[in-house]
Amino acid sequence: MKEKINILAFAGSLRKHSYNKYLLNTVKELLPENLTIEIFDIKDIPLFNEDEEKKGLPKVVTELREKISSADGVLIATPEYNYSYSGVIKNAIDWISRPPNQPLNGKPLAIIGASMGLSGTMRAQLHLRQSLIFLNPIILNKPEIYVSQAHEKFDENGKLIDENTKKLLITFLNSFSEWIKKINCI
Amino acid sequence: MKEKINILAFAGSLRKHSYNKYLLNTVKELLPENLTIEIFDIKDIPLFNEDEEKKGLPKVVTELREKISSADGVLIATPEYNYSYSGVIKNAIDWISRPPNQPLNGKPLAIIGASMGLSGTMRAQLHLRQSLIFLNPIILNKPEIYVSQAHEKFDENGKLIDENTKKLLITFLNSFSEWIKKINCI
Amino acid sequence: MKEKINILAFAGSLRKHSYNKYLLNTVKELLPENLTIEIFDIKDIPLFNEDEEKKGLPKVVTELREKISSADGVLIATPEYNYSYSGVIKNAIDWISRPPNQPLNGKPLAIIGASMGLSGTMRAQLHLRQSLIFLNPIILNKPEIYVSQAHEKFDENGKLIDENTKKLLITFLNSFSEWIKKINCI
Amino acid sequence: MKEKINILAFAGSLRKHSYNKYLLNTVKELLPENLTIEIFDIKDIPLFNEDEEKKGLPKVVTELREKISSADGVLIATPEYNYSYSGVIKNAIDWISRPPNQPLNGKPLAIIGASMGLSGTMRAQLHLRQSLIFLNPIILNKPEIYVSQAHEKFDENGKLIDENTKKLLITFLNSFSEWIKKINCI
Repeated sequence: MKEKINILAFAGSLRKHSYNKYLLNTVKELLPENLTIEIFDIKDIPLFNEDEEKKGLPKVVTELREKISSADGVLIATPEYNYSYSGVIKNAIDWISRPPNQPLNGKPLAIIGASMGLSGTMRAQLHLRQSLIFLNPIILNKPEIYVSQAHEKFDENGKLIDENTKKLLITFLNSFSEWIKKINCI
Repeated sequence: MKEKINILAFAGSLRKHSYNKYLLNTVKELLPENLTIEIFDIKDIPLFNEDEEKKGLPKVVTELREKISSADGVLIATPEYNYSYSGVIKNAIDWISRPPNQPLNGKPLAIIGASMGLSGTMRAQLHLRQSLIFLNPIILNKPEIYVSQAHEKFDENGKLIDENTKKLLITFLNSFSEWIKKINCI
Repeated sequence: MKEKINILAFAGSLRKHSYNKYLLNTVKELLPENLTIEIFDIKDIPLFNEDEEKKGLPKVVTELREKISSADGVLIATPEYNYSYSGVIKNAIDWISRPPNQPLNGKPLAIIGASMGLSGTMRAQLHLRQSLIFLNPIILNKPEIYVSQAHEKFDENGKLIDENTKKLLITFLNSFSEWIKKINCI
Repeated sequence: MKEKINILAFAGSLRKHSYNKYLLNTVKELLPENLTIEIFDIKDIPLFNEDEEKKGLPKVVTELREKISSADGVLIATPEYNYSYSGVIKNAIDWISRPPNQPLNGKPLAIIGASMGLSGTMRAQLHLRQSLIFLNPIILNKPEIYVSQAHEKFDENGKLIDENTKKLLITFLNSFSEWIKKINCI
C-alpha cells in the first residue's frame, strides 16, 4: 500500500497576494496526514502558440505535464474573471492538452475557488469542468468549495479567519482523499 | 451621416497560418463598401497579473482598449480548444475588463470561428458569449458562423475555397453591418 | 408615439407561493408609468411531444405565442433547480421555438430570478441565455437581478421587504424600459 | 461476483419515432453479454410543481427513482432543442432531485444523443452534465456519442444503418461497462 498520496496544485491568479494562493496555502496547512501537496506556479507559461510549440515544448510546460503525470491527484484553485475561470488557467490547459500524451487522462481532480464577489467562483468552476472533459480527468463533485467575499475570510497575512470555510475545507480534503483512492484503486 | 463603419477584429489563435486569421482575412476581402476593418494582433499581451497592472497597463493593452473604444463594432474569431475559446482570448478579455473604463460597454459585437473538428467552434462561442456579459457588448445572434473542418475549406495559401461558407460570410457581414447601425443608432 | 410599453412576463415555478411569482408581482407594483405588464401562467403547457404537435398546437401554447408576438418586451423570472433554469421553462421554450413563426425573433427580453440559495439563480440565467440564442430575442445584460436567500427578502404574504432589492428592481425596470425602446426603435 | 450489470435508460424525446428512442433500441441490440438494459418512458411525468409534490410524489416519479436506485448505471439519450437538452429531461431531473434520497448519488452515468443537425447534441450534453453535478452521479467522459444528421443514419424502421456509429456505440458500451464496474467496485 502506498504511504502518501501526493497532489499537484496550482492557482489561477498570478499576483502575489492572490486569494486563491491563500486558499492553496490553507489547504496545505489543513492537509490530512496521508497527503502531500506541491503547489506549482504557472506564471512562466507563455501564451499558447502552435508555431512556438513546433520548436519544442517550453520547459515549464514539460515540467507541469510531468508533475501532473506523477501526481495521484490534481487540485486547481480558480478565481472568477468575467464569469469564467482565468485566462492564465485556460492557457495552461491549452498547453497541457497537446499531443502526444495527456497527463490528466483518468486522473482524480478537484476544483476550488475564491473570489471577492458573491458567486464564490461558481460560474468559473462550471466552465472549467466543461473545458476539462476532453482531457478526461475524473472530477470530484462534492463538497463544492465556493469561497465568496474572500476579502472578509482571509486576514492581511493570508491566514484563513473564517471557521465555516475551514471546516468545509477539512471535509473537502477528506472527500478528495477518498476520491483519489477510489479512482486510483489505491 | 457617417461615411464608413469601422470594425476592430482579432483572432484567438497566434500561429501564423491560423484558420481564424484566414477567416478574418476573408472577411476583409468580402467586406461591404460601407465597412472598414482593422485586424489587431493580440500576441504581445502578457499573462494577466494584477501586480503588473498596478505598475501601469501594458502598452499593447492600452492600445487594444483604445482601438475598441473608437471602433463602431468588434469582431472576434475564435478557435475551439478544450471545448471553449482559447486562453489567449480569455487573457485579453481579462485585461480589457479592468477598471476604470470598459471599452466594450454597449458596443455591437459578433463572434465567428473556425476549427478542424465538427463543432465549428460552437462550444467556444457559447462560452465566449457568457464571458462577455459582464463587459456589456451587444452581441449579434444570427447568422452564426461555425466553420467546421476548416482544413478542407481553406487552401494552403489561406484562401477560402468553400462557396457555401463564402455566401454565409456575405450574409453575416450584411447582418453585422445592420446590427452595428441599429445598436449605434447610426 | 406609443402611449404604453407592454411586457409579457412568466415565472418558471408553478407553486402558488413561488418566490419568482412574488418577484413578478413586485415588478408589477414598481412598474414605471409608461409600462404595463401581463403575467402569463405556464402551468397548463403539456410536455412537448412532436406527435401531439402534429395534431395541432395546444391552445395554451398558441395563446402564449400570440401574447409574446404582440408584446413590446418579454420578462422571464426563473428559479434555479439543479444549476439550471426550471424544466417547465425549458418545456415552454421548446414549444415556442417550433416553426413556422418565432415570436421571440428580435424581441427585447430580460431575465430575472429568485432562489433560496446563495447563487440567486446566476447559473440558471446563464443557461437560459444560451437556450434563447436560437430564438433570437435581444437580451438585456445589465443590471442583473439575482435575488439570493429569497426567503429572507419576501414576507409570508409575498411582499418584498428588502430595500436594496427594491432599489435594484427600480433601476432594472428603467433600464429594461430604455432597452425596449432602443431595440424596438420606439 | 455479480452476474449481470443492469442499466436504467431513458430518452428525452417523447414522440414515437424519436431518434433517441432509436438510439436506445440500438444500444439494446448491441449490448455486451454481461449487461442488461431497461428503457423507461418518462412521458407520464407531470410538470414539476411543489404544491403537487406536497400531496405526494406522482407514482411514475417514485417508480423512476426506485429503478434508478436499483440500477448499476444510468444512461440518458438526449435530443438537442434550443442549444440544450429537452425540457422533458429537465423536468424529470427536477423531480428526481427532490429530497429525501437522491437516487443518482454516486451512480455511474453516461450521456448519449442524436439530432438531425450538425451538433450531434454536443451543446445539450454539456448543459446536462452541468445540471447533474448537484445529484452527484459519476459521469463517463469518453467516448462521446454525438449522432449528427440522425435522419441519414437510421432507416425508416429505426434501424441504425451507419457503420461508423455502430462501431462507436460498441466501443462506448465497453467503456461504460468498465466504468460501471470501476465506480461500483464490482
